[in-house]
Amino acid sequence: MNRKIRMGMVGGGRDAFIGGVHRIAAQMDGRIELVCGAFSSTPQKSKLSGKDLFLPPERVYGTYRDMIRKESKLPEGERMDFVSIVTPNNMHYPVAMASLDGGFHVVCDTPMTVNLDEAQNLERKIEATGKLFCLTRNYTGYPMVKEARELVAKGKLGKIRRVVVEYPQGWLAERLEASGQKQASWRTDARFAGVSCCMGDIGSHGHNLTEYITGLRITEVCADLNVFVNGRTLDDDGSVLIRFDNGARGVLWASQVAIGRANGLNIRVYGDKGTLEWDQEEPNSLIVRWPNKAAEVRRTAMAGISKAAASAARLTAGRPEGYLEGFANIYASFAAVVAQTIDGKAVDETKFDYPKVRDGVRGMFFVDTVVKSSASESKWLEVPE
Amino acid sequence: MNRKIRMGMVGGGRDAFIGGVHRIAAQMDGRIELVCGAFSSTPQKSKLSGKDLFLPPERVYGTYRDMIRKESKLPEGERMDFVSIVTPNNMHYPVAMASLDGGFHVVCDTPMTVNLDEAQNLERKIEATGKLFCLTRNYTGYPMVKEARELVAKGKLGKIRRVVVEYPQGWLAERLEASGQKQASWRTDARFAGVSCCMGDIGSHGHNLTEYITGLRITEVCADLNVFVNGRTLDDDGSVLIRFDNGARGVLWASQVAIGRANGLNIRVYGDKGTLEWDQEEPNSLIVRWPNKAAEVRRTAMAGISKAAASAARLTAGRPEGYLEGFANIYASFAAVVAQTIDGKAVDETKFDYPKVRDGVRGMFFVDTVVKSSASESKWLEVPE
Amino acid sequence: MNRKIRMGMVGGGRDAFIGGVHRIAAQMDGRIELVCGAFSSTPQKSKLSGKDLFLPPERVYGTYRDMIRKESKLPEGERMDFVSIVTPNNMHYPVAMASLDGGFHVVCDTPMTVNLDEAQNLERKIEATGKLFCLTRNYTGYPMVKEARELVAKGKLGKIRRVVVEYPQGWLAERLEASGQKQASWRTDARFAGVSCCMGDIGSHGHNLTEYITGLRITEVCADLNVFVNGRTLDDDGSVLIRFDNGARGVLWASQVAIGRANGLNIRVYGDKGTLEWDQEEPNSLIVRWPNKAAEVRRTAMAGISKAAASAARLTAGRPEGYLEGFANIYASFAAVVAQTIDGKAVDETKFDYPKVRDGVRGMFFVDTVVKSSASESKWLEVPE
Amino acid sequence: MNRKIRMGMVGGGRDAFIGGVHRIAAQMDGRIELVCGAFSSTPQKSKLSGKDLFLPPERVYGTYRDMIRKESKLPEGERMDFVSIVTPNNMHYPVAMASLDGGFHVVCDTPMTVNLDEAQNLERKIEATGKLFCLTRNYTGYPMVKEARELVAKGKLGKIRRVVVEYPQGWLAERLEASGQKQASWRTDARFAGVSCCMGDIGSHGHNLTEYITGLRITEVCADLNVFVNGRTLDDDGSVLIRFDNGARGVLWASQVAIGRANGLNIRVYGDKGTLEWDQEEPNSLIVRWPNKAAEVRRTAMAGISKAAASAARLTAGRPEGYLEGFANIYASFAAVVAQTIDGKAVDETKFDYPKVRDGVRGMFFVDTVVKSSASESKWLEVPE
Repeated sequence: MNRKIRMGMVGGGRDAFIGGVHRIAAQMDGRIELVCGAFSSTPQKSKLSGKDLFLPPERVYGTYRDMIRKESKLPEGERMDFVSIVTPNNMHYPVAMASLDGGFHVVCDTPMTVNLDEAQNLERKIEATGKLFCLTRNYTGYPMVKEARELVAKGKLGKIRRVVVEYPQGWLAERLEASGQKQASWRTDARFAGVSCCMGDIGSHGHNLTEYITGLRITEVCADLNVFVNGRTLDDDGSVLIRFDNGARGVLWASQVAIGRANGLNIRVYGDKGTLEWDQEEPNSLIVRWPNKAAEVRRTAMAGISKAAASAARLTAGRPEGYLEGFANIYASFAAVVAQTIDGKAVDETKFDYPKVRDGVRGMFFVDTVVKSSASESKWLEVPE
Repeated sequence: MNRKIRMGMVGGGRDAFIGGVHRIAAQMDGRIELVCGAFSSTPQKSKLSGKDLFLPPERVYGTYRDMIRKESKLPEGERMDFVSIVTPNNMHYPVAMASLDGGFHVVCDTPMTVNLDEAQNLERKIEATGKLFCLTRNYTGYPMVKEARELVAKGKLGKIRRVVVEYPQGWLAERLEASGQKQASWRTDARFAGVSCCMGDIGSHGHNLTEYITGLRITEVCADLNVFVNGRTLDDDGSVLIRFDNGARGVLWASQVAIGRANGLNIRVYGDKGTLEWDQEEPNSLIVRWPNKAAEVRRTAMAGISKAAASAARLTAGRPEGYLEGFANIYASFAAVVAQTIDGKAVDETKFDYPKVRDGVRGMFFVDTVVKSSASESKWLEVPE
Repeated sequence: MNRKIRMGMVGGGRDAFIGGVHRIAAQMDGRIELVCGAFSSTPQKSKLSGKDLFLPPERVYGTYRDMIRKESKLPEGERMDFVSIVTPNNMHYPVAMASLDGGFHVVCDTPMTVNLDEAQNLERKIEATGKLFCLTRNYTGYPMVKEARELVAKGKLGKIRRVVVEYPQGWLAERLEASGQKQASWRTDARFAGVSCCMGDIGSHGHNLTEYITGLRITEVCADLNVFVNGRTLDDDGSVLIRFDNGARGVLWASQVAIGRANGLNIRVYGDKGTLEWDQEEPNSLIVRWPNKAAEVRRTAMAGISKAAASAARLTAGRPEGYLEGFANIYASFAAVVAQTIDGKAVDETKFDYPKVRDGVRGMFFVDTVVKSSASESKWLEVPE
Repeated sequence: MNRKIRMGMVGGGRDAFIGGVHRIAAQMDGRIELVCGAFSSTPQKSKLSGKDLFLPPERVYGTYRDMIRKESKLPEGERMDFVSIVTPNNMHYPVAMASLDGGFHVVCDTPMTVNLDEAQNLERKIEATGKLFCLTRNYTGYPMVKEARELVAKGKLGKIRRVVVEYPQGWLAERLEASGQKQASWRTDARFAGVSCCMGDIGSHGHNLTEYITGLRITEVCADLNVFVNGRTLDDDGSVLIRFDNGARGVLWASQVAIGRANGLNIRVYGDKGTLEWDQEEPNSLIVRWPNKAAEVRRTAMAGISKAAASAARLTAGRPEGYLEGFANIYASFAAVVAQTIDGKAVDETKFDYPKVRDGVRGMFFVDTVVKSSASESKWLEVPE
């Protein structure tokens, strides 16, 4: 390919948070450039946001429908190649469907949709259109997460027996939504967030990280979701006993009322040959434990780590990489497959390491089943596929 | 009191592990001295062990029954004041019953008994005899555990919402009992260990630590116990969803197959005003988290900690205290109440900070209910009192 | 400004490391774009590198002289606004001088020059041309380094008494240059590296970080430099006693033979009211210690940190930022002042927080004096200004 | 031996700190018992202290001279076997001399004496009397310090190149002695503390730990001592460049004004094959680093550690040991050699791992030379032997 891949963005205008993350991540490696956007549901705000980003005014659209329609008419190489969706959750589905119908590949922020029906419809649409779809489950982009996955895949930990995954956050420990804070307001409102707040928003990352690292599938759950802050209807905390397709067992818990914790996603995987431990807040270390030996601390870009982990690092050892670099790795893998598509090559999407629609559907099944389990007298519920 | 308190010991002969721990812990503060013992079920081994300990031969007994009978006949001040029981678990009950009947106070290693019936009988016996009883749930002896308890008791963390307590060990990750290793053999054998291996041996410490720190009671459980190593009948791993009498929720899990972990008991308590975190393997730190502020690291013997924590430390700040000092704190509290009894004072045992028979009974109820829950289709089982 | 700032690059072609770092850092915030470059001393390699970067062929130059000459003739707004110099060290000076003479602002990788004469000439040239100059002492770009600086500047730590700054690396523990490894070869060769290897390359970062955080100046040194690997002529390790203009004292040491350490720059500052500790390999934590209180762990983007630190973070709390983000903060500050210059505003460069030529000159004086001190029988040598 | 070893104590009465540490440490393993003492320079206080310790009144003496005289007249096996000296520093020398003259072995708290003359006289006296002498440089008693020493001794780290040893404390950051605080008062007073406060009190521990672990000798120093708190005459902080007999170099610094640090002795040793790091405040971990491999965390009592380290641990892995256990290891080694002496065996004292008079003399030479160096214009001073 002799040009950059061209990205259009929906959402992510002034005051938004995750849109900026996507722009940095997408453009970090110099293979993707932002060429157009519909940055806000308020057309004037979209214009101003486009100006902030130094986009030509004619490529800044008032609505995503306008963007899709007009971009479709531009010649290949000038028009956007894919749409990045960074709107509030309830808009993911309609924008994704319209983008796919318009002939564009899609990158979509998490969670994929607000309910299972949408998720399954979206999966069918992707199959029907043959377009590429990337869900930014960004925590799988960290080099040491890839090292963890490799350790399991190569059998170094042996058969996996136990997994413990935690996701403590504290920002909803009080009723922040009552103050009108935007992020809190929509996440705690079933109309925008769907059937779950805590499990949908962050528990689902735990689910995805677990399945990514272990290569296993969570098949049964027994959940106890909680609403600790008065006035809420959706869960702000919860614990889940989990069972895996290989017989492994474990625990997944997440909380948005864990005071003093910012974004403490962490995982421990115990196999019959070894153990690994990883914590998102210090993502450059991976602790590996063996029987009757000293524990190891593996570090990003260190000599001797797997090729998958090494190639996910941009820097040499001792130069810490962070959230944005992990996020950028998702875009980099997606860019690689888009480039091949543009070059007219037949692609085997499964060989590219980024989360896809199936991950999104699995996540929705998980959250949906967890919510049902919490309300159920039955001990174990199966997670459908 | 113008003399040391006099301890007799049952068990703890050559090759035993925990007996030596009790001897060091009991005698650390110079208020207790070992005066006699029946150190082994093999009389000759008991004799040799007594000699190692520089005891006069006439105070080294061949059987605990012999010891109790003969010591009873010695004058007060010469005879032992209490019996420390450090035998395999299945002997705790008969030795304790005999000691109480013989008129002696008792210190007993954990778990208290191998089943609930014994535990309840023992409780009744203690009530009937009016003797003092101390169960060495030693992890509550650490200064920073006491600081944690004070933080909760004083309301600094607010209302407790979530507790996560973990106890990973890795030493039973393979079938060690097949090699004849003694510790592994009796712990995995229902005749000596009772209804549970992992939950009975270590999960019960997690239960006790949780109730000690939070001042709450675990009232309902939903458990999933596992047997990962072939050939075992008792659990070597398990996870439990827990509910508390104040509405708090959480997770307790324990494992003896967590490779590379030695003795990783740790707890996190989340209240509506703050959070605390403590880890037994680095017991001199207590992390405390507040909303919108930097996390704090409190340290053993540091200026500004609670009186309860400060008085549980023997050293000045920066001089780490360990497992033996925590263990010794249990004996020190017990010695204080025994001394008052010897001096003829009326004692209110509840004012002395050491684990008592009720803690032991509660632990047995917990383990028993967890085992039943794991086998049950019902989601929640109540923990009786 | 209604356009991006336009960057030309000298050096950083295929196989180079730091050029890629500069490109990511410069472009991370969407205010700077790479428009041209002379990426290699081999013109053909420069062309291929420009193609990798999707630059138009006419803006990819064979030599930096060619680039400066031709870009000068383009109209403002089309031509580059500044030159980023990422060549081997010995080329920093000639490229910087030519760029300034050509009317361009300059960003220059560290160390600024290979000797003191060049450094002082460059400073005079900058003064003469009135152009802007930024030296990428990138470690000062980390949010928690800015928090540290604010703590000192606001007097929270009181009068500074002691500073300990360390920079252990292990990559030169063996004679890597003998294998032809490029980075090792020029750094250990006085023709390219100047009077020092270890102190020049990394000790100088320690010097800069120290003066940045404390606001003090190192005025006297007593050094002991070492050559541990046979066959080397320049230092690969060294320790320096340091004295500051306010009477504070301390130690700076650096090593390239500290096996197992990747890039362990760290600093501790002890004042008469408090202490701070920061470690580049876990850069999102700043430990602050107070008398008779628990230690604090401040984290990037946490509530309650200084404005300087908060505005240097791109993400919300709990999302770790790394080396590239810190590096990008240097470019962001430089971009802000360049933008004002382009807009024709009078700028007070001192109000913009990035390392300038004076920092580079100070660093050269420090390294030069340390080398002299190590060879001297006199105990203390003054560091000239 | 068929009895315990009998210890007399000088100093350590009510209100003293270190005396209690010695009593716990000495008696921890059940081989030593306290049989008599002169606990205070105030006879009445000595009596009360003896009563606290349940000693028979006739074995509690008003003065150490009295104790030595009267104990000498008791039969062997009844009289004390050795004297433990835990007085203020200035009394170490006269008590030790009198004890040796009285025919008793000696254990002495650190620092050994208040000046070099005393130290050398004491060394000569020990040689002349043939008695055993143990200096409680207790930090060498930690199991992981022994593991560190073994790593070096076995050549695992290769040739040692660099050592960095630090000892930050913060308790003298203000003029505590002005409040009459006893520990601060004598340590900052040359009459009791000798030529140095900080270097004598804690820097000397750093010196000893360094030589113990590395097996090397510090042969040259270049020091910069500081007095940061107004009104003091002795150093409360200082840094020293150090050179070793094998060509290794490094830094030793110590401070009593490092606010927020309690007792932060730590050491790092860099060899040409590997690196080790140990920190007294978390003494159960030893970090070992290798080229191009993950760092290792070795833990007390872990499988696979050296025999020397394993036998210095009383507990199984995961049960943390602390300051008292390390201290007790010093007494345990001393007890072993005393026992052999009592049994009439010829002993080779060098085979027993505890600090001896030579360590004390070396420490005094070190402190003395450091003080001279700090006052000198010459860069390097040799440390005499």
